[in-house]
Amino acid sequence: MADKKIPYKIYLEESEMPRSWYNVRADMKNKPAPLLNPDTLQPMTAEDLSGVFCEELVQQELDETNAYLPIPEEIRDFYKMYRPSPLVRAYCLEEKLQTPAKIYYKFEGNNTSGSHKLNSAIAQAYYAKKQGLKGVTTETGAGQWGTALSMACSYFDLDCKVFMVKVSYEQKPFRREVMRTYGASVTPSPSETTAVGRKILAAHPGTSGSLGCAISEAVETAANTPGYRYVLGSVLNQVLLHQTVIGLETKAALDKYNIKPDIIIGCAGGGSNLGGLISPFVGEKLRGEADYRIIAVEPASCPSLTRGVYAYDFCDTGMVCPLAKMYTLGSGFIPAANHAGGLRYHGMSPVLSQLYHDGLMEAISVPQTSVFEAAEQFARVEGILPAPESSHAIRVAIDEAMKCKETGEEKTIVFGLTGTGYFDMVAYEKFHDGKMEDYVPTDEELATYRAMLPKVE
Amino acid sequence: MADKKIPYKIYLEESEMPRSWYNVRADMKNKPAPLLNPDTLQPMTAEDLSGVFCEELVQQELDETNAYLPIPEEIRDFYKMYRPSPLVRAYCLEEKLQTPAKIYYKFEGNNTSGSHKLNSAIAQAYYAKKQGLKGVTTETGAGQWGTALSMACSYFDLDCKVFMVKVSYEQKPFRREVMRTYGASVTPSPSETTAVGRKILAAHPGTSGSLGCAISEAVETAANTPGYRYVLGSVLNQVLLHQTVIGLETKAALDKYNIKPDIIIGCAGGGSNLGGLISPFVGEKLRGEADYRIIAVEPASCPSLTRGVYAYDFCDTGMVCPLAKMYTLGSGFIPAANHAGGLRYHGMSPVLSQLYHDGLMEAISVPQTSVFEAAEQFARVEGILPAPESSHAIRVAIDEAMKCKETGEEKTIVFGLTGTGYFDMVAYEKFHDGKMEDYVPTDEELATYRAMLPKVE
Repeated sequence: MADKKIPYKIYLEESEMPRSWYNVRADMKNKPAPLLNPDTLQPMTAEDLSGVFCEELVQQELDETNAYLPIPEEIRDFYKMYRPSPLVRAYCLEEKLQTPAKIYYKFEGNNTSGSHKLNSAIAQAYYAKKQGLKGVTTETGAGQWGTALSMACSYFDLDCKVFMVKVSYEQKPFRREVMRTYGASVTPSPSETTAVGRKILAAHPGTSGSLGCAISEAVETAANTPGYRYVLGSVLNQVLLHQTVIGLETKAALDKYNIKPDIIIGCAGGGSNLGGLISPFVGEKLRGEADYRIIAVEPASCPSLTRGVYAYDFCDTGMVCPLAKMYTLGSGFIPAANHAGGLRYHGMSPVLSQLYHDGLMEAISVPQTSVFEAAEQFARVEGILPAPESSHAIRVAIDEAMKCKETGEEKTIVFGLTGTGYFDMVAYEKFHDGKMEDYVPTDEELATYRAMLPKVE
Repeated sequence: MADKKIPYKIYLEESEMPRSWYNVRADMKNKPAPLLNPDTLQPMTAEDLSGVFCEELVQQELDETNAYLPIPEEIRDFYKMYRPSPLVRAYCLEEKLQTPAKIYYKFEGNNTSGSHKLNSAIAQAYYAKKQGLKGVTTETGAGQWGTALSMACSYFDLDCKVFMVKVSYEQKPFRREVMRTYGASVTPSPSETTAVGRKILAAHPGTSGSLGCAISEAVETAANTPGYRYVLGSVLNQVLLHQTVIGLETKAALDKYNIKPDIIIGCAGGGSNLGGLISPFVGEKLRGEADYRIIAVEPASCPSLTRGVYAYDFCDTGMVCPLAKMYTLGSGFIPAANHAGGLRYHGMSPVLSQLYHDGLMEAISVPQTSVFEAAEQFARVEGILPAPESSHAIRVAIDEAMKCKETGEEKTIVFGLTGTGYFDMVAYEKFHDGKMEDYVPTDEELATYRAMLPKVE
């Protein structure tokens, strides 16, 4: 058993919380490719972007030179309600596994949104408020992002219009009520409130909606409502930037106890959590100061890094948003109804895509049932019921720890535990009842959507 | 605006966590009246109790002399997974209310059980394991206690049989799944597995169950299964003792920053959270070292302290458990279906009843809709979605802070935030939709059940 000189939970002082976000693009030799205007196929300018996003966020989106961007005091004050988040030493899991590995996880679930999403939501709400906007629009699928944004808007007295995929709106009433508690208006999508919604409803009267459609409705509403902008919870450079508070805190906590990780693991959907966690460590790799093994974990049902291609593609199913160069399965790819709603995106953040392309991180895909096995094993000894998304990272952390058991190596493993699974009990129930299926797309299926990629370059 | 010299969240170091629980009975001049054997009306002896409870817990139940009982290292290790819990300065709430009052809350919701219940669950599981038992039985209504006990038993590899009130089992499948995740067997009550269950099912085939019936089934199962004991999540002296970790940490955190509270507020159901929070402060009052205003808050629909009588009564509806002298509405009283499931007990912990009787604390009852108004107000600025139970304390904390605004007094208010409301969104939905009702029992109704109290003394 470990000697336990390191506390179970490393809490930084509030004064040790990062004062700047870290912009990894500044240290990247190969910059991520720019977003392209879907009409002209030219790089999106600040002017193009400012019709949709707040001005300061546009600057952050395009900034490739400043490595550190100060976190405004108002955002730091909000962060203090739930940050610094703990870096936990998984003593109990280590003992259960009887592994010589040292396992740590950065836990982002100790806030009502239940995930890391709040880190960027509060930043985006702050800049919207600062610009004098009345409100923001967004879409949400499973509801984590919508919940986080509702909390952030409530704090700054901003109006918040959430388009929630209709099937989730109906099947996940609890998430909806959390958003209403924070004063957001939640509209099932497709709706009669937008032109695109009416068009889709006319064509498919019984549709239960999709994320792509909800994005289109949110973008249209922002464009047509004076004083509103659209905000997004992942994929974008600005979102990864805000999420670096995770990685910076992790690094500060490790440094405080002179711990050097060997392996850093995070789940990957659009890339916001993974990018935020690994950025400061990747920065060290890029600057030649240190080396780490970095592993992105994605679901076998939606394997954008491991089985996608690196190409320009639409960010949304509706093809109204800019084109991004990224690892993608094709914007037409609809992943099977797996239970990690946050990991069902067809593409991957352009920053992470470039890093992966340049060999700075690895990627692994894992099947759903093995993820829930890891989730349950973790919950029983570590006391935290993890979100299905986060459990992808747990799966690979356990696998790596078991390899250490075989080899006797005392590796230090750090993974991101992005959130809690309190609103995912339907998925756990399926797992307990043996009704959970593992779906893996066939090569033919992937080839079909790959063939539909836009022709760029 | 406050100068914010105090951090938003005061986290003690693990080394500052209490090493002993505090037994307030040692300092009480008027000891709580003993439990009585329902057959003989004589005080329950250790022997009487040890058929139902573990031996060390029986000792704790009867101990009126030792002020400090050491917390075993194994329990402290488990505590470290989620403790010390933060004492939060509610800067944002203060600013929203524009009050000169300083508001603090001790937050017990940062663990998967979602409440303070885990503090006693792990202790009871530990002593069961130490005694070589195979497992424990219990009942659960809304599910907080069952969840906490499942987590504790999973940690110590103990079997855990939970009888869950049938209506909750069916309407709250998520709580049930959390328990299953931790390996507990969850049986809807009444069930065919016990004599008392079969009897009730035969008499009332369509019954949706009650807490009283679930208690009876759990007690019967423990008595009839070799190697099993029954455990309970509130009311008992031993439970209050374990929960003093809340108050001891609160006091240590306040002392660390030289903060002296004027008012201490907690919600009161069976009394476990309130007793745990206030015990160290009451101890100071009893020893003449300090003075505090202490307020118990209960629902207007189940007002045992404010409208009950101080008398011997059955602890359970089924009248199989010992008699306790307490403030009670009568064991036959069934509170209206309010949404604070943890505050629907007809009686009150004997320790707290005695303290209230001796004028060491006050009590207030509040109607449900005003509780949810406070809950929503709190959630929007403090970022935590509170449990309906906890929100009773928030209601009175806000009321006291608003009095300070009128008088200009800078009082320091501390309240217990026992847990999160993630599994209570049906209640929030009713509140949002204006469908929540306030029920207050009539004097006639209360008189009916009072007349049915057992004749003792």
